[in-house]
Amino acid sequence: GLPRLGASPADEPCDAPLQWEGKWVVYDHNTGRNSRAAVSYDGQNQRIRVLQQHKKHTPCQRFFEYIYLYQSKVMFQIDQKTKECSKIALTEAWDPFDIPKNSTFEDQYIIGGPGDNVEVQEWSDRKPARQHEAWVGVYTLKDCYPVQETYTKNSTVTTSTRFLSLQLGISDPKVFTPPLTCQSSRPERMSEFSC
Amino acid sequence: GLPRLGASPADEPCDAPLQWEGKWVVYDHNTGRNSRAAVSYDGQNQRIRVLQQHKKHTPCQRFFEYIYLYQSKVMFQIDQKTKECSKIALTEAWDPFDIPKNSTFEDQYIIGGPGDNVEVQEWSDRKPARQHEAWVGVYTLKDCYPVQETYTKNSTVTTSTRFLSLQLGISDPKVFTPPLTCQSSRPERMSEFSC
Repeated sequence: GLPRLGASPADEPCDAPLQWEGKWVVYDHNTGRNSRAAVSYDGQNQRIRVLQQHKKHTPCQRFFEYIYLYQSKVMFQIDQKTKECSKIALTEAWDPFDIPKNSTFEDQYIIGGPGDNVEVQEWSDRKPARQHEAWVGVYTLKDCYPVQETYTKNSTVTTSTRFLSLQLGISDPKVFTPPLTCQSSRPERMSEFSC
Repeated sequence: GLPRLGASPADEPCDAPLQWEGKWVVYDHNTGRNSRAAVSYDGQNQRIRVLQQHKKHTPCQRFFEYIYLYQSKVMFQIDQKTKECSKIALTEAWDPFDIPKNSTFEDQYIIGGPGDNVEVQEWSDRKPARQHEAWVGVYTLKDCYPVQETYTKNSTVTTSTRFLSLQLGISDPKVFTPPLTCQSSRPERMSEFSC
């Protein structure tokens, strides 16, 4: 066959980093709202910590910290101001930020301009027999960091997550430990809007 | 004041390149469809050429070439297969892919991982008196290439455009010349679906 230079569409999906810290912006297509958060991702121990960020003036909104512990099947929701804490059972399975081995290669392209860019690959869970995909993931070519993940249900996009300013590793593992207020936590999810 | 290292949020918007070629993926939030195209962008002469691309099997869809000539206030729509051509008046004003000088700085962050990334800035047309923005643009920090543009109407996103694999300049200016079939063009827009 032809000589292959660098990564090729025929290659296997790359292995995404198991632990990182950074930010994400989740766009919810149902509500039309973007939510920004600082994120610590620990794929090794199946846990994620999400600290919501407030950029704009949003009068009635409460901001939370979320600690997802998939091995314990539990999620803690903590009010950033009052430290009120809810403990909620996790029903869905752990879904790591990576490219599953049986994924379908969709595209490879460059984000940015010449000499100022990052090369990425796009993968999906599309299968020949099924026209529409439920997941599309964009990952960097070199080190396989997540760039964007999009989830679709019945051909309609539900959420798009953009990953920003990722750093390898977890600088402070204590972020996955819920505060003391969670020892007397309540089982109901708190609403993001207080008025 | 503090010493400033490199680009700072207080800086003016950068000047986007005036001519480039590449691809884009437009996500239409109303229809839930992604459309991919090869694009030649000539901001100097206010013209854009869009060549729709077909990746997946889409039985009833027709694929078009679009040539927008804003200085002549006209758009040509050409069926890629039959070369049928429609000539349609452009009513909206020329809107270049750049960051207007009076834009609001929103954020600066990195796409990708350490040593494999591109740094970008996010700008919007948000004004202090108006809660919601109608436009958000993500551009590379170094050379000011477009990365993503999002348009919103009444707090609901209408389209998101991602720009891929951009190259500086126009390699073939002839792409802006409509084919001969456009000399006897019709004034109605052709539908993207033929059945």
